[in-house]
Amino acid sequence: MKEFWSKKIRDAEPYVPGEQPKDRKFIKLNTNENPYPPAQSVIAAIHAAADEKLRLYPDPECLDLRRAIARHTGLREEQVFCGNGSDEILAFAFQAFFDPNVPVSFADVTYSFYEVWAKYLDLSVNLIPLNDDFSLPLERFLEEPKGGIVIANPNAPTGQALAAGEVKRVVEAHPDQVVIVDEAYVDFGAESMARYIDTYPNLLVVQTASKSRSLAGLRVGWAMGNENLMAALRCVRDSVNSYTVDRLAAAGTAAALDNEEYFEKTCAAIAATRDKTRQRLLDSGFAVLPSKANFLFVSHPGVPGKALFQGLRERGVLARWFDKSRIRDHLRITVGTDEEMDALVAALTETVKTLK
Amino acid sequence: MKEFWSKKIRDAEPYVPGEQPKDRKFIKLNTNENPYPPAQSVIAAIHAAADEKLRLYPDPECLDLRRAIARHTGLREEQVFCGNGSDEILAFAFQAFFDPNVPVSFADVTYSFYEVWAKYLDLSVNLIPLNDDFSLPLERFLEEPKGGIVIANPNAPTGQALAAGEVKRVVEAHPDQVVIVDEAYVDFGAESMARYIDTYPNLLVVQTASKSRSLAGLRVGWAMGNENLMAALRCVRDSVNSYTVDRLAAAGTAAALDNEEYFEKTCAAIAATRDKTRQRLLDSGFAVLPSKANFLFVSHPGVPGKALFQGLRERGVLARWFDKSRIRDHLRITVGTDEEMDALVAALTETVKTLK
Repeated sequence: MKEFWSKKIRDAEPYVPGEQPKDRKFIKLNTNENPYPPAQSVIAAIHAAADEKLRLYPDPECLDLRRAIARHTGLREEQVFCGNGSDEILAFAFQAFFDPNVPVSFADVTYSFYEVWAKYLDLSVNLIPLNDDFSLPLERFLEEPKGGIVIANPNAPTGQALAAGEVKRVVEAHPDQVVIVDEAYVDFGAESMARYIDTYPNLLVVQTASKSRSLAGLRVGWAMGNENLMAALRCVRDSVNSYTVDRLAAAGTAAALDNEEYFEKTCAAIAATRDKTRQRLLDSGFAVLPSKANFLFVSHPGVPGKALFQGLRERGVLARWFDKSRIRDHLRITVGTDEEMDALVAALTETVKTLK
Repeated sequence: MKEFWSKKIRDAEPYVPGEQPKDRKFIKLNTNENPYPPAQSVIAAIHAAADEKLRLYPDPECLDLRRAIARHTGLREEQVFCGNGSDEILAFAFQAFFDPNVPVSFADVTYSFYEVWAKYLDLSVNLIPLNDDFSLPLERFLEEPKGGIVIANPNAPTGQALAAGEVKRVVEAHPDQVVIVDEAYVDFGAESMARYIDTYPNLLVVQTASKSRSLAGLRVGWAMGNENLMAALRCVRDSVNSYTVDRLAAAGTAAALDNEEYFEKTCAAIAATRDKTRQRLLDSGFAVLPSKANFLFVSHPGVPGKALFQGLRERGVLARWFDKSRIRDHLRITVGTDEEMDALVAALTETVKTLK
């Protein structure tokens, strides 16, 4: 019906998040959540924060959390900005650094929210097609962009990563444009660009607590960049919503950052499970891209992606299927525990057996 | 320096939130927080939620929380939308319901974020001046607006409220436009429009957990309106950031809504303290508007507002002073505990004695 709707939203094409099942119990491998819970120290920090001061607004500048991020990355707190999940940060960054008259460049197969934000903000887009093997065409990213650039590294839903040296070439090739490197999945095996913040005034690195820190339920993300870029993000935030990170989210995330040991252990476990699962799927006749993320990009010759998705669902496993050209025959499957991956491999193999 | 900044944010004039002091200990009466902590049942609900599932994304539709709000208001869950504080909801509503070519109308003295959002979103504004006594000029709100309307009821920073019958007249006078009623402070003595959601398809009521629910630290707000308006807000949200309310914030707010007894007790205590404090200030020669909110709008003949503000600050009391024409000689002072108000009255009286 859309009565009363502004023109802007009548035309919008919103993002569709992965299903969050409420009733039936699934093995949930569709939204790249961490199979391991946050560390006990994180829960303890949240309990402590809940016991005091909830009646008071949080610090809008998230100073304590920014200090924890600075400790963890070797940056200064002035080089960090926190928000309500990395999606909020990215939405702010699109507003802060991109103008409607100059197209923003990103891959044709990447995080689909980039296109939603660009369209919603009336930005024109230069889509650069991935190579046939879903690798990033580096030369085209060096030559083509006239405006801002967004690179997910590792990329989603493919799981492929660029080396830091390759990302540096993109950043250096476009010194007058902001290059956003979305590192939502970086901790599972790729190289972060955070160490180059002091070198490149046009580099913005975005990370999240949702994946490698096991805190998707808390909604915290952060950007890292020089002070000028951070000031721009603050300007957007204070034009929209000043207090976006709540007291408990800030306290829990800071505690997660301070627990390096648990972080390294769980990331290593996920990477090991991922590589083992990939090998088993390859052995069973699936095509699986090498992945540096906490998910695998899986297809099977002769079986449509939608059929794989439905076969898994019937067997109690949720994966993510995108109804989009080029990737319609693939599934993005989150890496869970070893036991969950056993169930996944069994369900996938059975599905293919039934369909072929 | 603003290198790399988009044109949009070079021109932005962001909101300036009230000071959140970190070091010195103040009696903090500057951001309308509740002086009473949330109920024990709220803390317990947060502890329980922290103990499970933080690794998983929250329900983007906040179904459990919407059900709690529906229970509390007598609405259906389809008539409720939740967000990261009522500021996020209002920012979404400005995008969802207002178009650049038709001016949005609100009072010249009201919540200053309205003007920030309008400017940021390139909306034109029809500012309607409050009457000399800071009451809302109802006739002008009935006659003048051609586009959307925003009314804070009670208004901030004045604390004055319209009766529900008066707000209804505005909603009825503009059936083709969305009327946003911002009820951030309604629970301290004004009448909510929530019961008229079924009657008026153009009515959007916005409330928050930050004030009467003692949960400013959690960042939760909600809109109430018919399903068509709720769909528009979802469309904006999913064009920007899909998961904005975290698991702990949702659980804590639902528990607060379910504890009616504590809510009524604390709201009544604040209203009693407010009225008593107003009388004492009137008796001491201050001018104080009647207030239906959890703050008082205070001035003194012959003493500039800035001097009052500084005098209080020197005496360890933070109030809010707006450097804006018409209200430059007033302070907005949050109602705290009786003890805090004793200190406030003493500090104000002393300040005036020194300055006169």
